[in-house]
Amino acid sequence: MPNNAQIHLDNRPQGEATASNFKLVQATTPPLADGQVLVRHHYLSLDPYMRGRMNDAKSYAAPQPLGQVMQGGTAGEVAESRSPKYRVGDKVVGMGGWQEYSVVDVSQPGALRKVDTTHVPLSHYLGAVGMPGVTAWYGLVKIIEPKAGETVVVSAATGAVGSALGALAKARGCRAVGIAGGPDKCKYAVDELGFDACIDYKQHQDAASLSKALKDACPNGIDGYFENVGGMVLDAVLLRMNAFGRIAVCGMIAGYDGAPLPMAYPALILTNRLKVQGFIVSEHMEIWPEALAELGALVGSGKLRPRESVAQGLAAAPEAFLGLLKGRNFGKQLVKLI
Amino acid sequence: MPNNAQIHLDNRPQGEATASNFKLVQATTPPLADGQVLVRHHYLSLDPYMRGRMNDAKSYAAPQPLGQVMQGGTAGEVAESRSPKYRVGDKVVGMGGWQEYSVVDVSQPGALRKVDTTHVPLSHYLGAVGMPGVTAWYGLVKIIEPKAGETVVVSAATGAVGSALGALAKARGCRAVGIAGGPDKCKYAVDELGFDACIDYKQHQDAASLSKALKDACPNGIDGYFENVGGMVLDAVLLRMNAFGRIAVCGMIAGYDGAPLPMAYPALILTNRLKVQGFIVSEHMEIWPEALAELGALVGSGKLRPRESVAQGLAAAPEAFLGLLKGRNFGKQLVKLI
Repeated sequence: MPNNAQIHLDNRPQGEATASNFKLVQATTPPLADGQVLVRHHYLSLDPYMRGRMNDAKSYAAPQPLGQVMQGGTAGEVAESRSPKYRVGDKVVGMGGWQEYSVVDVSQPGALRKVDTTHVPLSHYLGAVGMPGVTAWYGLVKIIEPKAGETVVVSAATGAVGSALGALAKARGCRAVGIAGGPDKCKYAVDELGFDACIDYKQHQDAASLSKALKDACPNGIDGYFENVGGMVLDAVLLRMNAFGRIAVCGMIAGYDGAPLPMAYPALILTNRLKVQGFIVSEHMEIWPEALAELGALVGSGKLRPRESVAQGLAAAPEAFLGLLKGRNFGKQLVKLI
Repeated sequence: MPNNAQIHLDNRPQGEATASNFKLVQATTPPLADGQVLVRHHYLSLDPYMRGRMNDAKSYAAPQPLGQVMQGGTAGEVAESRSPKYRVGDKVVGMGGWQEYSVVDVSQPGALRKVDTTHVPLSHYLGAVGMPGVTAWYGLVKIIEPKAGETVVVSAATGAVGSALGALAKARGCRAVGIAGGPDKCKYAVDELGFDACIDYKQHQDAASLSKALKDACPNGIDGYFENVGGMVLDAVLLRMNAFGRIAVCGMIAGYDGAPLPMAYPALILTNRLKVQGFIVSEHMEIWPEALAELGALVGSGKLRPRESVAQGLAAAPEAFLGLLKGRNFGKQLVKLI
């Protein structure tokens, strides 16, 4: 029974989330029953959706319970096994949460997935070749449905979802335009991720100004938009959408603290005959194999070179997560445990 | 060359539209060329979309030109013909505009359509069995795609579009709930149009209050919404949409005067995985025959009994139109010319 440090949600945020919402707890792992494996986590995945689950609000997912381990994706290796399907040393991805170890009942569908780290580093299975990559794939392929030559825009372009979106859009012959915070991220989006252009939203005080920059970056208008942030960025993009444009709504991080986040010009949905559609990738498990195959090939061939921000040690998880919500990460935010 | 009174758009509205934006002009009809017919208009159709076209703004349709006849749908009969396809006395529907007569080149596709007034009164071809009815059909069948047992809500429920929407939704086994202005309209929606319930939005000062009324009228939540108005009503409905709900955006009359019309809670599109889609029925001509067949059958069988507000004489058109924008009409707003 190894010691197992955990981070619990101790109390819910009042407005902005803070480190005091979390609590580091020392526990031990229980003995394994038949059909269970013990997974030692190498990486925790930190993702914006977790902020929404910290609220006690009606949403697509049940709220994160108080006094329990923060839920989230993990990548690691099997440390002990009482299942014939898993051997010690197998590399696996699951939903182990913010702790050093997890005990997994392998008969639960989707609870654990063996991964091959020959060509793809283990950590990427939490990013480009994992849930964030599949999220980009679903929004692009199933909602935006881009044609070659169209212009596709994504916000939070250097994040785990945005960087995959860019590579997937380029693979379909689209013009890919990113929106990101700061000159370093924008330079990286163009130089390393293959975006045709990237706009630094921090250079713009309002939607009108950002919209003007979008006009320059998207001379033929915008046909598809993948929304990660909401607020001013959404308003600016709406002003540049072409007729019959499609908007995949994946996240609205700007509103997660409960601040009002209105859409200024909903009438544009009518005048430009737009489709605006929200989705959650976990409700579309049927597309994961196809999406993961394409994403794995893009990473394996070097066409998608995802960047990672890695915090060290479980105790660093809360601050790293709060930094992610502020856009302080650069690429996929992970916590490395060993 | 009969005398032909016309109403022109004289100048564009600054904010709210007024009677002084229009001008009554006396003209004469030109002699017919080969392939042309002269149509004497019995009815003009007045429709909310016309308000949008009075602005000189980028929109789906070119603006209504100044100093020219107000464009719009008309129903009438052939008064003279130089085409073998039309005989004097044929009942026809077209886009003759706000004038007593129009000269139509019959070779232009869709310019003129012969209609059968045996079972359906001529005026209904401008309403339930015309563009407004087909608009309801497209939004319901192609965007909302309702299943039997689902709840479908429509705003402006007693208008030409809304009343057709109610009958079409009931024909598909849905619960149909209307939103309308005033107790008379709501009573009519339930007693005559077959809605299961109707809410008087004038009884509610804000979206929260209206949303509460929607909760009572839609005990299983809202699966489909057909949007004619925007603003507070849209906000209230969004708060009651079920997961995977669909919103067909047909009109946002509340914003036609240029007042800001934000959507308060766009994050609900994400949390409830909604599809919000704008459309214009004239871009989907391929569905008109199927839609008109169903609508004609509903009217012919008495399952759809559309109500009409009829203004008398061309000179009454501007005031009738302004009344329509204020919701003073009750059912399809027409102008009768003879």
